[in-house]
Order: sequence, then structure tokens, then C-alpha cells
Amino acid sequence: MRMRKKKHRDDRLNACADFIINDFEKIKTEEKLFDNDNPVHLEIGCGKGRFITETAKLNPNINFLAAEKNLDVLLLAAEKIKNENIKNVKFFAGDANNFADFERGKVFDRIYINFCDPWKKNRQAKRRLTHKNFLEIYKNILKDGGELHFKTDNTDLFEFSLNSFADFGLNMKNITLNLHKSGFEGNVMTEYEKLFSEKGQPIYRCEVVF
Amino acid sequence: MRMRKKKHRDDRLNACADFIINDFEKIKTEEKLFDNDNPVHLEIGCGKGRFITETAKLNPNINFLAAEKNLDVLLLAAEKIKNENIKNVKFFAGDANNFADFERGKVFDRIYINFCDPWKKNRQAKRRLTHKNFLEIYKNILKDGGELHFKTDNTDLFEFSLNSFADFGLNMKNITLNLHKSGFEGNVMTEYEKLFSEKGQPIYRCEVVF
Ligand SMILES: C[S@@+](CC[C@H](N)C(=O)[O-])C[C@H]1O[C@@H](n2cnc3c(N)ncnc32)[C@H](O)[C@@H]1O
Ligand SMILES: C[S@@+](CC[C@H](N)C(=O)[O-])C[C@H]1O[C@@H](n2cnc3c(N)ncnc32)[C@H](O)[C@@H]1O
Repeated sequence: MRMRKKKHRDDRLNACADFIINDFEKIKTEEKLFDNDNPVHLEIGCGKGRFITETAKLNPNINFLAAEKNLDVLLLAAEKIKNENIKNVKFFAGDANNFADFERGKVFDRIYINFCDPWKKNRQAKRRLTHKNFLEIYKNILKDGGELHFKTDNTDLFEFSLNSFADFGLNMKNITLNLHKSGFEGNVMTEYEKLFSEKGQPIYRCEVVF
Repeated sequence: MRMRKKKHRDDRLNACADFIINDFEKIKTEEKLFDNDNPVHLEIGCGKGRFITETAKLNPNINFLAAEKNLDVLLLAAEKIKNENIKNVKFFAGDANNFADFERGKVFDRIYINFCDPWKKNRQAKRRLTHKNFLEIYKNILKDGGELHFKTDNTDLFEFSLNSFADFGLNMKNITLNLHKSGFEGNVMTEYEKLFSEKGQPIYRCEVVF
């Protein structure tokens, strides 16, 4: 059963091959992932791709690279992009940790992180995508003045992240403790955001300047 | 009736005269409000004085100046200090706005603001004690590297304040979105803090470096 499911998934992934980069070597070294010179925004952990699909449609003059290590959800995201014939999105099927070895320098204008795993235990802090080790990576791949846009429903993770940004010496802006009541315009909801906000939970958001 | 109450209050205030400064001229120009060279911390809006009383007892080598414009609550605070024979606290009976005319330069090591009025309407933003106009005042009276320690129960005010600090270019630290669950040690509760936390409301806190 398991094998059959996997075979089926691999066939579907293959059908989206134009949009999916499996080998980080290509991302690491290749000058151009898109055949134009538009700015590139990176999403880390795009899940089923609701956010990247909507955001890409709203911003046809920006290219989006979306990293996702879980192939089961990545597949759903890639099929959305394929079905809607969206040209400005590509996926990296792998772990964002790879960007520690990125060799092309400061090329991204923006990074999006939406509802990343909170890793609740203190000893797991290093796995949080807003831990200073990750900020170090982002600093190396974001252009100067580039921004990280961060959303979460998790109070502890948001608290941890605000302190992590501040301790790293980064400037923050547009901090909100209740996004959907804040009057913030142009928000694009993610799958998790829909789920949590329908339960009445407040959504936290902030922008961080590198 | 009203007059009698006021007369009574004035008598009680007079009995605390050693601890209360009514005329800002004295604070504005006098080199020394205390007869030692210990650091001076300023509290703005001390209310009934629970926080300043406990904090002063825990820190005998720091002097505290507490500003409070409401004489009815100031009286209760001053009586606490008098009754406990605490030597390192004085009160300014007046509005913190006066510090805009402070002439002695950067003399305070720390400012405390606890549960200041949220002023909910947008058009009232300038009255919030964390509005940039007030930050400008604090910058002029705090030593370089001096800190503002801020607590509130009000989500909107905390959100406003974080953005105000960040937009002003100030570094923050020890941000917490739920003080009483944060593991923060050495917290001294204020009257309002007791009230709100007993109702189960989370308390927000952060430190800001000038
Ligand atoms: C909680 S889900 C949120 C998905 C989506 N962003 C949303 O808001 O609906 C987090 C996603 O991030 C992915 N992820 C977590 N850590 C990652 C990493 N280091 N590199 C790539 N993807 C990661 C997970 O596989 C998962 O799909
Ligand atoms: C909401 S109460 C909080 C009192 C106390 N800090 C506590 O946490 O229990 C705010 C206090 O600040 C005082 N206050 C507000 N604005 C002030 C100002 N500009 N100057 C001096 N006192 C002020 C008010 O009179 C009031 O007593």
C-alpha cells in the first residue's frame, strides 16, 4: 500500500517537474532560476501553497521560490501552480537548512515565513526558523535592506522571535498582535492561518529589516 | 462635603511634605534631590505606590523619583513611604509632561512605566506615554544606555508601544507576551497588575535601551 502511494506521488511530482527543483546545487550556483531579472522572494515552508499561489498572482512582476521539505504537501502546492499556469513560482523540494551553503550571496529581496513549527521545548529552540542561527543564514542571502515577513498563531514562538530579532540587532516594523483586527491591508491567508483564525485565535505578524 | 474632603487630603499631604515635591522648578534645576550619589530611577504614574515601595525596599542603593499627577492616589503612595520610613523615594506631584523642560540633562538611569492609560482612540495617540513625543523626552533625560521598563495589560497599547519603540530606532530586550508565565524573576507587581492578572489576563512587558 505504502509503495503504491509513493509511486503515485512520484508520478504526480514528475508531472510538475518544470516547477520543482530537487537538487540544491542548482539553486546554490545557478545565476538565474527565472528567465527575467525581477526581484526574487523566498518562502520557507510553503505547505500546500495557498499563500504562494495567491501572492504570486497578485505580484506578477516578482519571482517566488518556495522551499518545502515535505513532499506530500509540496506536491499539492506545485499542482496548484501548474493548474493555474502561474509562471513566477518555483519550488525547492528540500530543507531550508541548505541555504547555509548558498554561494550566490545576497540575492533575495524578501523572505516569508508563515506559521512555522513552534518547537515548544527549550532544547528545540535551535530548530525554530527564527533562531539566530537561521537569522545568520537569512542575513547572508537577503539583500541589504531586504525584509523577513513573519506570521504565526503561536504566542510563545512570537515572543521568542521578537526577542531573537531584537537581540540580533534587527529593526522591526508593522508589528501586530492581532493581524485580522489590525487594519493591515493586502494580507494573504495561509492554510494554517485560515484554520487558526476561524477558531478565533489572534494571528501575530511582523516585518524585520536586514 | 467636597471642601472638607479636600482639606483633609491637604492635611495628610502636608504630613508627607518631606517626600513630596510640588514645584517642578526644583526638579528641573536642583543638582541633587537625594543626599547621596546613587543612581536615580524615575517612575511615571506611580498610582498608589505599591510598585515603587517594594522596588525601593529591594534596592536600597538606588534612589527613586515617582511622578504622579493625581493627588488622591499620590497621597496613598506617599503615606506608604512615610509609614515604612523608606529613605530612597521622593514624589513629584505633577504631570510627566513637565520633563519636556528638564534642564539637568541625562541624569536618570532608568524609567518605569506601568499600566499607563491606553487612550484607545487613534486621535488620542499623542497622550500615550509611549508615543514618540514622550520617547523624545525620555531620550533627553535618560543616560545613554539607560532603559525604559514598560508593563501593560492592554494588547493594543503594547502593540502601539512596540512599534513606537522600533520606529524610534530603539533596541528592545526581554520582550514577553505573558509575564507571569515567562519565568521572569524579580517581578514586582503593581496595583493594576494584581487586578488584571487575578482576572486571568496576560501581562505584557519589555525593556527598551536608549
Ligand atoms: C506548520 S506548516 C505551515 C504551512 C504554511 N506555511 C501555512 O501557513 O499554512 C510548516 C511547514 O514548513 C515546512 N518546513 C518546516 N521546516 C522546514 C525547513 N527547514 N525547510 C523546508 N520546509 C520546512 C513543513 O514541512 C511544513 O509543511
Ligand atoms: C492606570 S494607572 C496605573 C497606576 C500604577 N502604575 C499601577 O500599575 O497600578 C495610571 C496612573 O498614571 C497617572 N498618570 C497618567 N499620566 C500621567 C502623567 N502624564 N504624569 C503623571 N502621572 C500620570 C494617573 O494619574 C494614574 O494614577
